[in-house]
Amino acid sequence: MYIVPEAKIADLVSREASFEAVEQVFAAMASKDAYNFPVVREAIGHEDALYGFKGGFDRVGGSLGLKAGGYWPHNLEKRGLINHQSTVFLFDPDTGRVHAMVGGNLLTALRTAAASSVSIKHLAREDAKVMGMIGAGHQATFQLRAALEQRSFEKVIGWNYHPEMLPNIEKVAQEAGLPFEAVELEGMREADVIISITSAFSPSLMADHVSEGTHIACMGTDTKGKQEVEAALLAKAKVFTDEVAQSISIGEAQHAVGSGLIAESDVIEIGAVINGAHPGRTSDSDITLFDGTGVGLQDLAVASKVVELAIERGVAIEVDF
Amino acid sequence: MYIVPEAKIADLVSREASFEAVEQVFAAMASKDAYNFPVVREAIGHEDALYGFKGGFDRVGGSLGLKAGGYWPHNLEKRGLINHQSTVFLFDPDTGRVHAMVGGNLLTALRTAAASSVSIKHLAREDAKVMGMIGAGHQATFQLRAALEQRSFEKVIGWNYHPEMLPNIEKVAQEAGLPFEAVELEGMREADVIISITSAFSPSLMADHVSEGTHIACMGTDTKGKQEVEAALLAKAKVFTDEVAQSISIGEAQHAVGSGLIAESDVIEIGAVINGAHPGRTSDSDITLFDGTGVGLQDLAVASKVVELAIERGVAIEVDF
Repeated sequence: MYIVPEAKIADLVSREASFEAVEQVFAAMASKDAYNFPVVREAIGHEDALYGFKGGFDRVGGSLGLKAGGYWPHNLEKRGLINHQSTVFLFDPDTGRVHAMVGGNLLTALRTAAASSVSIKHLAREDAKVMGMIGAGHQATFQLRAALEQRSFEKVIGWNYHPEMLPNIEKVAQEAGLPFEAVELEGMREADVIISITSAFSPSLMADHVSEGTHIACMGTDTKGKQEVEAALLAKAKVFTDEVAQSISIGEAQHAVGSGLIAESDVIEIGAVINGAHPGRTSDSDITLFDGTGVGLQDLAVASKVVELAIERGVAIEVDF
Repeated sequence: MYIVPEAKIADLVSREASFEAVEQVFAAMASKDAYNFPVVREAIGHEDALYGFKGGFDRVGGSLGLKAGGYWPHNLEKRGLINHQSTVFLFDPDTGRVHAMVGGNLLTALRTAAASSVSIKHLAREDAKVMGMIGAGHQATFQLRAALEQRSFEKVIGWNYHPEMLPNIEKVAQEAGLPFEAVELEGMREADVIISITSAFSPSLMADHVSEGTHIACMGTDTKGKQEVEAALLAKAKVFTDEVAQSISIGEAQHAVGSGLIAESDVIEIGAVINGAHPGRTSDSDITLFDGTGVGLQDLAVASKVVELAIERGVAIEVDF
């Protein structure tokens, strides 16, 4: 079996490779060639940690396995380690033997950024010019970097609950040669694409902060009770997601479905758009919204790509297991 | 992190060490210091395989993680590999970082044998002389070897649906210097301890095959629909298990509880006996029955011990992950 340590990932996997892997696996999910297993997520009663497993199987891509790990909120302050810790384990679907172990921390950021990028590719207007960011943390920088590759953006605008963090995303805009402007939430009316990546329990972005024709990717809600955007925004939008079951239970759509503003059947798998089975955006005035909840298959898809590249380049550690 | 390959396990872990690890973790479960996570078990629709994860956390023993793998029924005939394939992954509960990867195939046999042994230690009569085996496969040899260490047995008797397999367990009896006798199921009335380890969907051992004072360990039932012993036997017995929730849903007690012969509250965690919170056997005429369903914490406990020993003896492969 092969081991690809966390420290080797950055040199191995490009945003393009992550994008392709995630796009393919979303398509495989919609065509029922890939599925995610029930998620295990446990508050273990130690170090305030959340720990669990997200597994799945993609019979076309050939990836079987899981991401294990979670959130240790005191890691940084107590030990200088990052709080999100995860590892991906891949198995050989033909034999059940373990095939590879891959560091999952950077992978998680890349696969999450790839998901919103895939949604922009397939749902945003071709002539989108203004990119809006809600959130300015570590994850937001990955999101913005990947998003800017999808359209010919001319400006980035940003809002964050803690404005002193906005320089994080301003720097990414500058790297891409784009001007950056801090705005109030009302200022998001100028945006053609908005990515929201915050960890919040009440909405920041309201329905009237969003103009016709905008595409919004909600990437921060992955737990019951969390919410980034007003439920009424989903009622005005065409709603897409990675996995419907997660979207309506722990994703952004939990609120709009729960309050009866939209039905479960209004939430469409983005894979259906990638496959051509659903038209996606049909007019320049449509508001499209992607609810990115994060599925195990994304991790497996990107990890499989990493292992392939690591073997090719002689970077994988081979262990006789 | 550390890696202990499958091939190294046999030299590292003794039956005694497995026994102690399993006894401790059963005790920790009953005192609520350890718990198992929901089990993921998926028919993945490829190679007729069953694949899944059994995880848990033992805050006293400090083990956190999972066993991943499953059953690939065509491995042996198609590839010369064993059909049960599993791997244990341990995590550091203080940081969420992966701590070790351990081959899980032999471990599974050892931890399962340790469970019935623990039940014999705590529930069988001290003066037990005749050991009865129902089942004669690969697992049965592990079971018998471990069981014989718990009492001063003088004879082994055995029954198997395929009698031509009985030499498997006869050999184990001979190694222990004990006579072996093949019997019909009625012959089990002579046994003081019975281990049943078969994979069956209807009972072999009936209530009137079992004499007063006997201890029975049912180790083969781990799925809805499977059954090794008549439900009426559970109604006559004091019933113990590793985990009540599994016992009444996928274990041997599913039938007796399902048909109303016993109540869920009649099924006692064996850890309570180990801890002294439950008296266990109170008379030489009691029939005691242990329903061993197999929990993730057993795997983690034995794997933790293996890693400790492997590090101590310089056998663990250390990887900078």
